Amino acid sequence: MENKSSLLSSRGARIAGYEGILGKGFDMYVRDPYEQDTNPQGILNLGTSENKLCYDIIHERLTRPGMNSLDPHLLQYSDVQGLQSFREEIAKFLTEYARAQNPLDPEHIVVMNGCCSVLASLTAVLCDSEDAYLIPTPYYGSVYPDSWLYGKVRPVHVQLDSKMSDGESHPFMLTVKKLEDAMTEATKQGIRVRALILINPHNPLGDIYPAHLLKECLDFAHRYGLHVIIDEIYMLSVYDGTFASVHSLDRLPDPERTHIIWGFSKDFAMCGFRVGTVYTQSQEVRKALNQLACFHGCAGPVQQLLSRLIWDQEWINNTFLPANRRRLLKSRSILVNGLQKLNIPVLKGFAGLFVWADFRKFLKTQTFEAEMDLWWRLIHEKVYISPGQAFYCSEPGWFRLVFSDTVNKIQLGIERLQQALGVLAGFDSEDIPTHVSGEESTSEPEMIDSDATQLKKIVVY
Amino acid sequence: MENKSSLLSSRGARIAGYEGILGKGFDMYVRDPYEQDTNPQGILNLGTSENKLCYDIIHERLTRPGMNSLDPHLLQYSDVQGLQSFREEIAKFLTEYARAQNPLDPEHIVVMNGCCSVLASLTAVLCDSEDAYLIPTPYYGSVYPDSWLYGKVRPVHVQLDSKMSDGESHPFMLTVKKLEDAMTEATKQGIRVRALILINPHNPLGDIYPAHLLKECLDFAHRYGLHVIIDEIYMLSVYDGTFASVHSLDRLPDPERTHIIWGFSKDFAMCGFRVGTVYTQSQEVRKALNQLACFHGCAGPVQQLLSRLIWDQEWINNTFLPANRRRLLKSRSILVNGLQKLNIPVLKGFAGLFVWADFRKFLKTQTFEAEMDLWWRLIHEKVYISPGQAFYCSEPGWFRLVFSDTVNKIQLGIERLQQALGVLAGFDSEDIPTHVSGEESTSEPEMIDSDATQLKKIVVY
Repeated sequence: MENKSSLLSSRGARIAGYEGILGKGFDMYVRDPYEQDTNPQGILNLGTSENKLCYDIIHERLTRPGMNSLDPHLLQYSDVQGLQSFREEIAKFLTEYARAQNPLDPEHIVVMNGCCSVLASLTAVLCDSEDAYLIPTPYYGSVYPDSWLYGKVRPVHVQLDSKMSDGESHPFMLTVKKLEDAMTEATKQGIRVRALILINPHNPLGDIYPAHLLKECLDFAHRYGLHVIIDEIYMLSVYDGTFASVHSLDRLPDPERTHIIWGFSKDFAMCGFRVGTVYTQSQEVRKALNQLACFHGCAGPVQQLLSRLIWDQEWINNTFLPANRRRLLKSRSILVNGLQKLNIPVLKGFAGLFVWADFRKFLKTQTFEAEMDLWWRLIHEKVYISPGQAFYCSEPGWFRLVFSDTVNKIQLGIERLQQALGVLAGFDSEDIPTHVSGEESTSEPEMIDSDATQLKKIVVY
Repeated sequence: MENKSSLLSSRGARIAGYEGILGKGFDMYVRDPYEQDTNPQGILNLGTSENKLCYDIIHERLTRPGMNSLDPHLLQYSDVQGLQSFREEIAKFLTEYARAQNPLDPEHIVVMNGCCSVLASLTAVLCDSEDAYLIPTPYYGSVYPDSWLYGKVRPVHVQLDSKMSDGESHPFMLTVKKLEDAMTEATKQGIRVRALILINPHNPLGDIYPAHLLKECLDFAHRYGLHVIIDEIYMLSVYDGTFASVHSLDRLPDPERTHIIWGFSKDFAMCGFRVGTVYTQSQEVRKALNQLACFHGCAGPVQQLLSRLIWDQEWINNTFLPANRRRLLKSRSILVNGLQKLNIPVLKGFAGLFVWADFRKFLKTQTFEAEMDLWWRLIHEKVYISPGQAFYCSEPGWFRLVFSDTVNKIQLGIERLQQALGVLAGFDSEDIPTHVSGEESTSEPEMIDSDATQLKKIVVY
């Protein structure tokens, strides 16, 4: 009998061997989750991007009479692309909330069990093994395994950092020049780049790309014949400023190579439902996706339930969105105020469920090893936040902290951070200086506008 | 700008280019489905293996008060291997209904969105591209795309046919000698075989492997260091005889290479819920599967709902299973009687939702082209059944007909078949000869036992 190590194929061993920091952190949390009553010494999860603020509202809407009625056809096989009725509701929903120029076509939508599946299947059909996609760093770290595990597709990083060059208005700013440079370098190295992946609103930066930048990026991709995959999963989780969806642009330079992802996980606070969508005008791409869609199907009853949810725009507009926005702002202000007391600077953000914070002063050396050491120190103190290297950040010392959780947990998280970091805190938010920047920063700090929010004089870059 | 044909990668083009007959038939049906009131001229689907007989019972159970309660954690990310509570219920369920020798371990179970996903991910981690698995033909045709689309893994066919050799007790009989021969031939051709895939109860034959044959197959695989993937998705859809699960065997020759699939689609009449499971004792294989499991996740609420369903063994034993068995038998007898009137022989079956029937006399020539011509003739008459080549049958002229539908539809299906085939029918089932075989057959016919069933003197091989 062969030895145990030969149970898997080479591919299987490659797949099993992948280790992601976000997954690792989540796994540790799942094995020892903090619970106020039953496991108060458990790990506090401020590392996983989930919206836990709207359970009451979502629960009330999902459990109204008739929502879970179970028509016979829902128990049977259905269109692998997604139930026609569901795709019609999604088309109407996206047309409205992404402010599409023209009514979106339900035939252009493919429904899958989450945006990870969308990304895995999309990169698999657009790229061959060893092909690459351009992606600005830092970026949502799961893009890497999503494209790597099945598809063996790789990223070419477009490295952004906190240092601002001439003409840049904020740290980690994306410019087409940076895309051009990365593309040129990749081509020199003989790497075949097939796509550009953008996340907007951005994870982990909380940034929103202005419409003109989006257009420039699309034009850039078109010049090089690249597909553009835009992940707009935080489309409605915007608490400051205005988001411009690619759907809302007046023209797409290359519509057949433009693929727009959106899902229910973040904006409707239901990661556990596993429903993501992609909008693509290319019949050829949809045909390929639909072949793989049988491996990424959603339960019929779930599709029906969510159809009924997004059909109710009155509830979305007047109940859910205002409450969600209010709660996101409140939780964010608590976290940012807490970090401020620890003198931890936070990047100005506009959307998402997290802040991008500068822990560089707590690193023993400005290295990723030191960042990892700090991460373990925090885990040891039972607080899980996500280190920048989980997002392939080029600069060590940045962490993403999720704020979309209860006030108690966020406050406890701050306490544990303080404990782990060994810092003195306690000065009042009124007393702090208006401009504090990280020790390594060369950029000018910016202020979050305090009018529309409860945030006061938050220290940010 | 590049031309349209270059939108996909080579892999994407390969994936898009796959065309399966089962999928094609289903797609035609979805576009024009028969409905008694609204679309009586639509396509009647006796080609897709779905149990439509138990909607009332399942619906009643699933919609009892409390079944759809929505705990907060169900809206959040959870263990990608499947909810712990769900895996515990599945372990108990399989221990009981598969008559496991020892209590099954919830840690050995991986939950995915359907058995297609299980097969896709399992073959991907056990086999490299261009590796192969042995599989007796005919077999459930989707095994091919399940292993081919993502994994590029191929079948090596172990061809069974209706001619019985010495010592064989029935047509399409699997023997280890046939496995050995196929393995030898594959090795000669330089094909790397990594696994044996068995379907038991068998789709499309409706056969059940006796325990001694299962053991011989497992021993065979062990001799060659092959993984064994056993698909037991029809485990409870047995209407005659006794099924022996691999779980029930007193020893497994190579437990770490034995992977047992089961799902809710067939046995609980809920294909639309997309829930499949695999039981594997190998931690290494599970680790690899769990990496891919994020692409094949089931909604948390669905996992909870089905936990509650299989928890209720009183209902399963006293309500669901007896009714399901009774209805399967009744529908089967209506279909078999109908086919008998058309003088179409049917293979003796014990399980599943279908019969395997001999249409060879209706082929213009004994070729797969003629089989396809007949298939189109039937589609033209608006009745979809599945031709043998969809199951990689080596002998043209066999079709799989699904009987687990309402009496009306089956009777209409028979009428349309009669119309399409242009045969005279109408002689009573009492009048037919007890032995009729297909024109090409060399085998002795067998009788289905009529005691436990409503079937009388059915003409079978």
